Amino acid sequence: MRALVLDGALRLETDRPVPQAPPGEALIRVRQAGICNTDLELVKGYLAFKGVPGHEFVGVVQSVTGVTSYPLMGRRVAGEINAACGVCETCRAGRPTHCPNRTTLGIDRRDGAFAEYLTLPVGNLHPIPDVVTDDQAVFVEPLAAACEILQQVHLRPTDRVVVVGDGKLGLLCAQVLSLTGCHLTVLGRHAGKLDTLCATRHGIRVSTSADDVDRGADVVVEATGTPDGLATARALVRPRGTIVLKSTYHGALTVNLTMAVVDEVSLVGSRCGPFAPAIRLLEQRLVEVEPMIHARYALDDGLAAFERASAKGTLKVLLKME
Amino acid sequence: MRALVLDGALRLETDRPVPQAPPGEALIRVRQAGICNTDLELVKGYLAFKGVPGHEFVGVVQSVTGVTSYPLMGRRVAGEINAACGVCETCRAGRPTHCPNRTTLGIDRRDGAFAEYLTLPVGNLHPIPDVVTDDQAVFVEPLAAACEILQQVHLRPTDRVVVVGDGKLGLLCAQVLSLTGCHLTVLGRHAGKLDTLCATRHGIRVSTSADDVDRGADVVVEATGTPDGLATARALVRPRGTIVLKSTYHGALTVNLTMAVVDEVSLVGSRCGPFAPAIRLLEQRLVEVEPMIHARYALDDGLAAFERASAKGTLKVLLKME
Repeated sequence: MRALVLDGALRLETDRPVPQAPPGEALIRVRQAGICNTDLELVKGYLAFKGVPGHEFVGVVQSVTGVTSYPLMGRRVAGEINAACGVCETCRAGRPTHCPNRTTLGIDRRDGAFAEYLTLPVGNLHPIPDVVTDDQAVFVEPLAAACEILQQVHLRPTDRVVVVGDGKLGLLCAQVLSLTGCHLTVLGRHAGKLDTLCATRHGIRVSTSADDVDRGADVVVEATGTPDGLATARALVRPRGTIVLKSTYHGALTVNLTMAVVDEVSLVGSRCGPFAPAIRLLEQRLVEVEPMIHARYALDDGLAAFERASAKGTLKVLLKME
Repeated sequence: MRALVLDGALRLETDRPVPQAPPGEALIRVRQAGICNTDLELVKGYLAFKGVPGHEFVGVVQSVTGVTSYPLMGRRVAGEINAACGVCETCRAGRPTHCPNRTTLGIDRRDGAFAEYLTLPVGNLHPIPDVVTDDQAVFVEPLAAACEILQQVHLRPTDRVVVVGDGKLGLLCAQVLSLTGCHLTVLGRHAGKLDTLCATRHGIRVSTSADDVDRGADVVVEATGTPDGLATARALVRPRGTIVLKSTYHGALTVNLTMAVVDEVSLVGSRCGPFAPAIRLLEQRLVEVEPMIHARYALDDGLAAFERASAKGTLKVLLKME
């Protein structure tokens, strides 16, 4: 099969073997996949990943191994990306996305979605309702990550909230958080990206200057994808407020945490989230993702797609496999 | 001025004096008001209220007493209904809606909105953005009461939630709670009312039979407005789950609370909520209220309006003052 493969550099392979689904896993024919900032970081060396990247996808279940009757056979699915062991203490405590033995699709010791086929445990798969298009379905994974904020933090309708960052994840977080009725401001750097957000939701406040954003926010979501965002978040959050950390990047950040102690600020790391609510939000048309699609490429043009995704001002770039 | 007055029975007065705004209060010309279930309960004797009922309104600020420069002069406003003393311990602790000295618009020792004019403390008033119509603005008060649930309970996107009751408040609660992406079912008695809900939001599950609703909900909102709803809520909530009590009615309920202890269920009373988020949800078009308007009456036909509002299957009835 054809696949993009990362091994120091990214290259297109045309004769990679179709993966064999081990027992309990499904073989999925990928229809479409999205390039995430994490993919760009992987190419820069994040996690030293080798293999097929890609973890935002929609595909069709082709076969399953060791399962006789499987209701999602032939159905369009999105897939949770953490493949947990299911037997360790963390898994049994109901936290499989934190399983210490997990592999992660296209990120950690598991080939991912920038290929014609991938495999995932059947328990990771979620059917995509007919009213949700392939274009929308590719956003289920990052939208779930946005929902994770509301899973972790009790965000109240009266809260003043700032999302720092106008990238793909920042804009999804903004759309999801605005559904709570909270007083939301999005602080970004790109007028074009902020315009895209305003096109998806009437009445969201946006700004390109931290000086124009009121201090004292109850909750600040740091979603810049860069080490710079935390200082901005620190400046905006109120004493006893909460900073939600959404950025993952290659490289470390030197940070003085004394202010977090003095101001009794909570820092909440936040990663993968629940798929079912994300699918419901798309099904109910409460989140609009199409305006975020900036380009589409065939898998064969994957290297050009990555180049485009890395360009300033670009939101989502999709890879079509068929 | 003209006003509906409750004094044992409800009657129309045509020569009631225009109220005098005391210092710190605004005189408001009412444009439109909505009849709430609480108003119907007041007529039945709830709280033994005497005076002008009505607490859901949109009006225009005519004058203020003892305030020289007031930014909302001449503006359309909605008003929070609890007039707190501002100096007691409860007020100073930031809980003015629970001030023991409070009066409540059209409900407790304060004339309300079924009249040409009313007065409220200026701190209670919220400007209505131009994009929000008078019809929408009348729903700010009950929509705020729906938002109060999210203010009190950390409802997670993965939660299974049931709203019991398909009345005016139940449908607003359903719309607001569905914004969290939670797995929501609305259990009602009137196919017509449930159809109205489905017209406002694609993808909400509805049912007219408790037997068809899965047990074990994480959160159940009891919004039937009748004593019957609690037993249904008890049957549907999971151990360690939460029942949110939204119904207020004339008369008492005999209830066995042992199950709440055995199953460690939390009961959360929930009443008035924050106006600002409710206005934001209307401004962002995230809640649709127009399909809930079933009839409009002039103030002079207020008694007929109450009769209509009491009829089975009726949702919101509006009174127009001008």
